[in-house]
Amino acid sequence: MHNIDNLTRKIVRFNKDRDWEQFHNPKDLAISLSLEASEVLEHFQWKNNEEIEEYIKNHKENIGEELADVFYWVILMSHYLNIDIIKASEKKLKKNAEKYPINKAKGKHTKYNQL
Amino acid sequence: MHNIDNLTRKIVRFNKDRDWEQFHNPKDLAISLSLEASEVLEHFQWKNNEEIEEYIKNHKENIGEELADVFYWVILMSHYLNIDIIKASEKKLKKNAEKYPINKAKGKHTKYNQL
Amino acid sequence: MHNIDNLTRKIVRFNKDRDWEQFHNPKDLAISLSLEASEVLEHFQWKNNEEIEEYIKNHKENIGEELADVFYWVILMSHYLNIDIIKASEKKLKKNAEKYPINKAKGKHTKYNQL
Amino acid sequence: MHNIDNLTRKIVRFNKDRDWEQFHNPKDLAISLSLEASEVLEHFQWKNNEEIEEYIKNHKENIGEELADVFYWVILMSHYLNIDIIKASEKKLKKNAEKYPINKAKGKHTKYNQL
Repeated sequence: MHNIDNLTRKIVRFNKDRDWEQFHNPKDLAISLSLEASEVLEHFQWKNNEEIEEYIKNHKENIGEELADVFYWVILMSHYLNIDIIKASEKKLKKNAEKYPINKAKGKHTKYNQL
Repeated sequence: MHNIDNLTRKIVRFNKDRDWEQFHNPKDLAISLSLEASEVLEHFQWKNNEEIEEYIKNHKENIGEELADVFYWVILMSHYLNIDIIKASEKKLKKNAEKYPINKAKGKHTKYNQL
Repeated sequence: MHNIDNLTRKIVRFNKDRDWEQFHNPKDLAISLSLEASEVLEHFQWKNNEEIEEYIKNHKENIGEELADVFYWVILMSHYLNIDIIKASEKKLKKNAEKYPINKAKGKHTKYNQL
Repeated sequence: MHNIDNLTRKIVRFNKDRDWEQFHNPKDLAISLSLEASEVLEHFQWKNNEEIEEYIKNHKENIGEELADVFYWVILMSHYLNIDIIKASEKKLKKNAEKYPINKAKGKHTKYNQL
């Protein structure tokens, strides 16, 4: 079982130990989140599906690190803003389940804008 | 205590129920991650620190939803790529702790490139 | 006077000479555009206004290169999609001028969403 | 022939007329650039090559507007930072021509990182 509270504590502690919280204003945190998401995306650029499949096999550790960087900023930002990210996620998922009822959404990739 | 495995199961189920997994190739997943991170960033644009503080008070729910969207894609992408995101995060944090030793990094925001 | 047609021709020629057009599908072009825009943004992260002012003085050449990278993809993408980017820009500017009439918009930074 | 100086003057004038230059600090300009690039990318998400080809036919005007938005911020940012974007682009292109000599780069999409 994976407990996110421990990880959150470690991330917060990591930053406190280095006195880095002074730099963590929301705008720059959000910029970090966006830049790290771009770094994930960069891995898949200029590759077709077969090349990506092959690439993932050989770079799983590296992609995992990039995803961890995005995860890190979501967790840290949620912590600072006093947002319970698990609860917020459960809530959003419920909202989306209502927005995209199974019988209507099934198999359609028009989901995000035109359903 | 916050268990991420339950949330992961719900997210996976949500997509299976809608037959959406067929659209979830890694490149488009990574695009989603990047677009959702941009939506978080959009909230803080054109605002100074005071305005942001005020804004957060009045839009916490909404920002929580956007962070949840990023979280969602990290979790789903990690699931598909068979990456244990908690383990990957712990590992990355350890790596960063070595890269930025407390006594050298303390209070410096040169951390990300020039330390 | 700055003529953009010459630059466009050079950029197109640069890619033709290298047989790179085969990789330039719209999705990957748009990813490039997004990634290069992120690289511009990265320069301004974790810096306050004074630090940014100082930073720009010392990194103007470098920032110019990053902006040129974004410019490059806009021009190349417009070329492939047969979009006259100058005309499209003039048209969009006219549209925005109507959307944000001077007397209403003056001095307000609510422009982008709430005017 | 397409002259970019006229467009630049119009864009600068558009913002002066609305007293918006006070909001245009480099960090927020760079955020705008990044957000608008994301909006271009959004058009191509969740679509395969055939769907994209079809989509472009029916949404050329709209994509042109989004590219114009990115173009707008590159031009405005270059103007504020006193960067001659055409010169910077010509210079960068020359640099890339040396970095990726035709005989070595021809037909390879390893260009961006591994050549």
